[in-house]
Amino acid sequence: MRVKICLIGKGTVGTSFLKLVNIKKEEFEQKFNLEIIVTSIFEHDGALIKENGINLKEVLDAETNFRNLPYWKKNVSAKELIPTLNANICIETTPTNSKTGEPGLSHIIEALNHNMDVVSSNKGPFYIEYEKIINLAEKNGCFVKYEATVASCVPSLGIKENLIGNEILSIKAILNGTSNFILSRMTAEGVNFSLALKEAQELGYAESDPTLDIEGFDAAGKIVILANDILGWSKSIHDVKIEGISKITPHAIDLVKSDGFVIKHLAIAEDNELVVEPRLIDKHSPLNIAGTLNVIELETKYAGSIILMGRGAGGLEAASALLNDLLSIAKQRKFLR
Amino acid sequence: MRVKICLIGKGTVGTSFLKLVNIKKEEFEQKFNLEIIVTSIFEHDGALIKENGINLKEVLDAETNFRNLPYWKKNVSAKELIPTLNANICIETTPTNSKTGEPGLSHIIEALNHNMDVVSSNKGPFYIEYEKIINLAEKNGCFVKYEATVASCVPSLGIKENLIGNEILSIKAILNGTSNFILSRMTAEGVNFSLALKEAQELGYAESDPTLDIEGFDAAGKIVILANDILGWSKSIHDVKIEGISKITPHAIDLVKSDGFVIKHLAIAEDNELVVEPRLIDKHSPLNIAGTLNVIELETKYAGSIILMGRGAGGLEAASALLNDLLSIAKQRKFLR
Repeated sequence: MRVKICLIGKGTVGTSFLKLVNIKKEEFEQKFNLEIIVTSIFEHDGALIKENGINLKEVLDAETNFRNLPYWKKNVSAKELIPTLNANICIETTPTNSKTGEPGLSHIIEALNHNMDVVSSNKGPFYIEYEKIINLAEKNGCFVKYEATVASCVPSLGIKENLIGNEILSIKAILNGTSNFILSRMTAEGVNFSLALKEAQELGYAESDPTLDIEGFDAAGKIVILANDILGWSKSIHDVKIEGISKITPHAIDLVKSDGFVIKHLAIAEDNELVVEPRLIDKHSPLNIAGTLNVIELETKYAGSIILMGRGAGGLEAASALLNDLLSIAKQRKFLR
Repeated sequence: MRVKICLIGKGTVGTSFLKLVNIKKEEFEQKFNLEIIVTSIFEHDGALIKENGINLKEVLDAETNFRNLPYWKKNVSAKELIPTLNANICIETTPTNSKTGEPGLSHIIEALNHNMDVVSSNKGPFYIEYEKIINLAEKNGCFVKYEATVASCVPSLGIKENLIGNEILSIKAILNGTSNFILSRMTAEGVNFSLALKEAQELGYAESDPTLDIEGFDAAGKIVILANDILGWSKSIHDVKIEGISKITPHAIDLVKSDGFVIKHLAIAEDNELVVEPRLIDKHSPLNIAGTLNVIELETKYAGSIILMGRGAGGLEAASALLNDLLSIAKQRKFLR
């Protein structure tokens, strides 16, 4: 069977997705009898469009010059063309406006309105308009999957399928690699916040404007998605009590260290409340992870804690999560052998 | 829809399974339109049998006196009655003989031969005759699931479905809570092996004959199952290079500690080789877990390590894994709404 893909966004994640599909194409054809055809790739200023399938190697080889390819259409937008595309699955990888969720939100709604299934690495739409998206998908009989939005490739959402005989009660997680890197450095080296932030920026872990990470908004968006998807809640980012890490001093870290604790920037979903804030945890807790890793602890009713850990960011990491979602939809749509 | 269950083994895991089904029965009827009916419960010396469904509360209330219930049939065996049972799913929870896999192996084969799907918490059959079981299941169009055999409720096998867009290259794991408890105590308190073992026995973590745990056979069986299921290998426990932990001294632990390492009893599947042996790991490694927890590190091609952690033992823990497998089969058989 053949599945037609519309990819929106050709940044790090979108390009990694094309790379991964290009690598895995033959394997999937042999193993699953599934042919993945990318028929459109949208950027903010136009799109590559080829009804019978874009040659991915050609696009990847062109690198940043992909706009010179003969099937580049200038000044067309995803929103305007989605009704005409006739694709099976829309992959949304644009960067998000954390206030409005746009342009991803409109892309997702437009795709669902035209009976495309949706796979997204773009968080914003889901922490701002979760219910709207899920209800629309249900109404139109579409799948919408977004594993890549939380802890990237770590199957933090998919795992609920493996726990349906149990019951997940609450979630504690570290969902932002940048703030965890900063706290880890402050704890290990005794440096102050500004120095640790500078180091994170030099290593490329923190953006030049690190507000979303260090003030907890990024983690807040992710805990909303986790709670809605895994616990069945209906929250938005406005429901999260958020406190950042910029006021934490080396002195505070030292103080708790002598009692066997560390300070971590936790995202918590418990008792119908969402919180992102610095918390003390035992230094032997599995949540005490160093560096830029993400960790998610699911407290279950019948089996204590189940913990997942892994890289929370990275192009190929997110792309592999997108591809998992794509295959899962293909399987449910019976595209797979 | 109605699913008829034959339960074999009414020890800790079997009884916990009955408890959990009894608790979740109504929820499943409402949520999934699935009615779980247990029609037979086998022990080594007979069985409770009721074609229209056993009252689970009655059996649980009877505790160890269940043999006094009017529908107890003395001296009947699972192997002999399976052909007559007409059940949909056989749940195998008997203790295993680690040399032969019996009696579980015969139960599983007999069930598959009579077109029952199988869910097992019994490891032996799978580390001794993996291929035979899987091939028979495939030939007869049956499902066979065994999440509970490795790290209990931690979805170490089920997670592969969430990683099909990626590629799992190798596995490093701590799969035996007893030996990990002993090493953790030796590391934290500087006590010797015998004392730590005695403590584990007093706390009920180690059996009076702890050989299978401390000599690595239990972990070896589990890494065989993980490698076969997740990496697609075809190994048996005879293919594992096994070394136990009984020769490790406090001196050795101290020596490596000063260089920032700890000694852990790792089970490894890598480069077509299976090994269970004491290994040095960095003290900051996510594999450095204390106590009786289990941990599994999956090295993936496109997203680095993905790590799973949780309780590796316990009645309700294993029962919840059995129930997950049962629901997953019910879903694939379209018993679920």
